[in-house]
Amino acid sequence: MRLITFRTDDGTRAGVVRGTEVTPLACPDVGAVLAAAQAAELTPAEAISAGVCPAAGPAVGLSGLDLAPVVPNPGKVLCVGLNYRPHIAEMGHDEPDHPTLFNKWADSLLGPADDLEVPPEVELLDWEVELVVVVGRTIRRADRAAAAAAIAGFTVGNDVSARDWQNRTTQFLQGKVWPGSSPVGPWLVTADDLGPAPDLEVSCTVSGTRMQTGRTGDLIFDPPTLLAYVSTFTTLQPGDLVFTGTPGGVGAARTPPIGLGDGDELVTTIEAIGTLRNRCVAG
Amino acid sequence: MRLITFRTDDGTRAGVVRGTEVTPLACPDVGAVLAAAQAAELTPAEAISAGVCPAAGPAVGLSGLDLAPVVPNPGKVLCVGLNYRPHIAEMGHDEPDHPTLFNKWADSLLGPADDLEVPPEVELLDWEVELVVVVGRTIRRADRAAAAAAIAGFTVGNDVSARDWQNRTTQFLQGKVWPGSSPVGPWLVTADDLGPAPDLEVSCTVSGTRMQTGRTGDLIFDPPTLLAYVSTFTTLQPGDLVFTGTPGGVGAARTPPIGLGDGDELVTTIEAIGTLRNRCVAG
Repeated sequence: MRLITFRTDDGTRAGVVRGTEVTPLACPDVGAVLAAAQAAELTPAEAISAGVCPAAGPAVGLSGLDLAPVVPNPGKVLCVGLNYRPHIAEMGHDEPDHPTLFNKWADSLLGPADDLEVPPEVELLDWEVELVVVVGRTIRRADRAAAAAAIAGFTVGNDVSARDWQNRTTQFLQGKVWPGSSPVGPWLVTADDLGPAPDLEVSCTVSGTRMQTGRTGDLIFDPPTLLAYVSTFTTLQPGDLVFTGTPGGVGAARTPPIGLGDGDELVTTIEAIGTLRNRCVAG
Repeated sequence: MRLITFRTDDGTRAGVVRGTEVTPLACPDVGAVLAAAQAAELTPAEAISAGVCPAAGPAVGLSGLDLAPVVPNPGKVLCVGLNYRPHIAEMGHDEPDHPTLFNKWADSLLGPADDLEVPPEVELLDWEVELVVVVGRTIRRADRAAAAAAIAGFTVGNDVSARDWQNRTTQFLQGKVWPGSSPVGPWLVTADDLGPAPDLEVSCTVSGTRMQTGRTGDLIFDPPTLLAYVSTFTTLQPGDLVFTGTPGGVGAARTPPIGLGDGDELVTTIEAIGTLRNRCVAG
């Protein structure tokens, strides 16, 4: 099942995508659908079928909708640094014992077709295609099986990074949280369609040039492992997002380094999930 | 003026402290008071005087109240790494050009007299007394003067750190966000009492032994400078918190390293603001 959050004249609304049509739901966004499903002790797909978030109007065409970040207001957005085995090997690093974790805020997110601002203060705005885990259940100190069961599904993200700000100090935060910098969507594909640790091709294209290609089967810390680890030191809640890291091919690692500029089209794709298309606009 | 958030049978409530008495306000917490003051285009003290959050009952004794984190649900909690000039000099570092910034989440906070859990997974739980800036106005790309005017006031914090987890990778997050790990309070002292960059003694005592002493006048990046810098890359909102860094004397830097254990009393004090007293309890 595919779930979206779309913008309306008075806020946002969740919907179920069926082919080219969308059934609006009586929930304001996908995060609310996931919370309602947890309260009903059902999976998101079961909850929709059971009418937990009933239809709230006739079906509408998908192509005419203005999509929001699939979860517009997650409580927590975690991100993983080095996580693709071939990329770590090519850089000559050893495989890490623990995931390198940092975070974004909800207002760092961007819709799947929104314009991406290139801030005037940023010298190198870089791309990072990432599989994003959407949490469906409240977990703390979960083992791998409980963490796998807590995965609502997956979406596509781009951990767009102000690389010069990221590298000003040891801590990445100031390069990772610019408002509306990180597109996420276009929809949540529920875990009953993909399983808890799918092996999917991820790619990123900038203005027609393929920059990144990888497979999520090469993740050192797969989604259940990541959620179990994170749940040791914090409580995860329905709607929380975990960006799982990016493969090689970022702009900062090229000679010379390159970044996103005014007019670039950033296309971020994950097989069996979907594509984000964001036009870059000088801020 | 001193503002608190205290717990009641049905949630929390804001209050004004006058001597040993507290006037409850018709706002659920200090964050709501600050948002209401901004909406009225008044300072927090002006807003209280003008009845923006009117009294909601007779005065009660301060000593009988169960204090919550002074802002229980900040949207953003930022923290600064190295920021005390003498501590940087004693470690042989150069002064940084930019503040090292990371963050906590709202659920990482703890009340000023709550028990502090020592999690079983943590080998070294360490202390860090910090002056905490409470944001009063929405700011983005603020200059130093606008940032100074956006400071609602100050409170006391302890950036309690799971040092072994913090040092597992380059990114501090996983050592900084354990649930209920970071006491903050006991109250907000408004900026009209302290100014935007006060020079105050900060100290931390563990079970009667003074571990840390410093002066906020030694901050490399003072509160207005920090808020202006942060507002470049994110929007700050009323109730957001900025922990400003800690002086020398942490447990991890001692020989041998020492940390908090079951039964320890952690006392965190800032001159002219107040004191946090948290008993450590094995989790």
